[in-house]
Amino acid sequence: MDFAHELKRHVASVERGLDRFMPPASTRPARLHTAMRYSLEAGGKRLRPVLVLATAELFAGAKATKDESKFENQKSQILDALPAAVALECVHTYSLIHDDLPCMDNDDLRRGRPTAHKQFDEATALLAGDALLTYAFALLAENYAAQPPLAAALVRELADAAGSRRLIGGQMADLLAEKKTDATPYELEFIHLNKTAAMIEAALVMGGLIGGARKEDLAALRRAGQHLGLAFQIVDDILDATADTAALGKTAGKDAKAGKTTFVKVHGLAASRSLAAEQNDAAIAALDALPNGGGLLLLLVNTIAVRSS
Amino acid sequence: MDFAHELKRHVASVERGLDRFMPPASTRPARLHTAMRYSLEAGGKRLRPVLVLATAELFAGAKATKDESKFENQKSQILDALPAAVALECVHTYSLIHDDLPCMDNDDLRRGRPTAHKQFDEATALLAGDALLTYAFALLAENYAAQPPLAAALVRELADAAGSRRLIGGQMADLLAEKKTDATPYELEFIHLNKTAAMIEAALVMGGLIGGARKEDLAALRRAGQHLGLAFQIVDDILDATADTAALGKTAGKDAKAGKTTFVKVHGLAASRSLAAEQNDAAIAALDALPNGGGLLLLLVNTIAVRSS
Repeated sequence: MDFAHELKRHVASVERGLDRFMPPASTRPARLHTAMRYSLEAGGKRLRPVLVLATAELFAGAKATKDESKFENQKSQILDALPAAVALECVHTYSLIHDDLPCMDNDDLRRGRPTAHKQFDEATALLAGDALLTYAFALLAENYAAQPPLAAALVRELADAAGSRRLIGGQMADLLAEKKTDATPYELEFIHLNKTAAMIEAALVMGGLIGGARKEDLAALRRAGQHLGLAFQIVDDILDATADTAALGKTAGKDAKAGKTTFVKVHGLAASRSLAAEQNDAAIAALDALPNGGGLLLLLVNTIAVRSS
Repeated sequence: MDFAHELKRHVASVERGLDRFMPPASTRPARLHTAMRYSLEAGGKRLRPVLVLATAELFAGAKATKDESKFENQKSQILDALPAAVALECVHTYSLIHDDLPCMDNDDLRRGRPTAHKQFDEATALLAGDALLTYAFALLAENYAAQPPLAAALVRELADAAGSRRLIGGQMADLLAEKKTDATPYELEFIHLNKTAAMIEAALVMGGLIGGARKEDLAALRRAGQHLGLAFQIVDDILDATADTAALGKTAGKDAKAGKTTFVKVHGLAASRSLAAEQNDAAIAALDALPNGGGLLLLLVNTIAVRSS
């Protein structure tokens, strides 16, 4: 498998999907829809939506090799993963917009461009975030209407992962930990299992649901997502402590300045590197049990590890 | 029908439902879940969730009179409306929390108590709003999982009504109109058809979906919701201009001070009163075509009109 080519193909699908499934910037009120697209189009790695597409394809492909006659049908299932991929990127983008607001991290720069509240204003950024979150659920309900059990399962997975016990809970815990000088590894793990890993987990599970993964495979995807999410966050913490602003595309060294509870702060740089490798290996082990040996997913896992080198 | 009793019964169901379906305040992180409950428990008229319950009961009741044997089955359908009612109140409450934030209306008082960002802080209020919005979709997907087509239809209705073209779009247009001295009646109607009427419409349609309303009845409910929502907003504008803070439970006279585009500002007080009555009559006409003559809904419509006297 030509990994670079596969990744490029998925990213291109996501970019096309974003344009196709989002309301035009001119939709009334235009300022709101312009702000939604501004933040979505800021780019980024598109990791989460690519994971949705890669996972859906993995399972659809595995089925197709067992039964050639179903291949055409499976290919249409792969296409079907795009609205879910876009929905996930909407939720991710909303969380970044709100996270950047003055009352949260107060960040001026995101992906090398002014953050939404800098480019527009706070109220517009707040509402654009709200709108992206809401639109994610509309996308799922509308585009999977012909398969109601799948639609309902996708909504449930996304709402749980983005909810008060997971994504938002992790952000709240993160804010609360800023004021503490003695955050424990246990608190640190709660923050990142939820703030970061929840959405990576949801990407894999939603892709699995669309691809028709069996129950035990969904469980493996969930485990892999947790480890992958932790690995990703540890690497992010390492980069914040070691890279410069230009390379990051966002303000570097902010975590330490804000007194954030990071892996580097709690465990130190060397131990954080080992922890990242450990979580990465655990993710690979979970993926290894999947049909087709994890295929593209394994490679994606490794690119995340490579970022830290 | 003893209207006061019926209304009390529905409000009591909603209060019990809020307690039953929301995560306990002690759920980790406790500050977030405490803030979610603080805002939900601030009370208010519970108009939207009551409309869900009343509408579901209306259709279930109408069916039961046609076929006695189905009555028990229909009664369980009525009970089933509670998660949807709670979901709608979650979305309404989220919109109030975000609307009260300093970058939006900057309000200190809501339902006679400090607003969420005054009681907690801005970041907690922002996240509590995000969490309530997200939880609404989790509630629908989880509690209607046994009826996937209903779950998907409810999610779609709620996401559309709360989305960038409706609720959030109305709020954005409202903010943009503040800076204008010459807002037209057309702009005014766009704001309120979306800012207020969208969620009233969703309440009626979601109740109808749960109660098993026919397609033509759903269309009548949608029309009624639009008129009812406009009537409600006009009355709200009149009250803001004429009542005092103690009676309102929120800061009075704020609209004029903020330069808001209200019905009173655009049309004057007398014409606004006529318009409210007109919209009220149109709502009644739409409801009149429903099974059981609209029953409780008709009475609810009239209480909204009475507020303005």
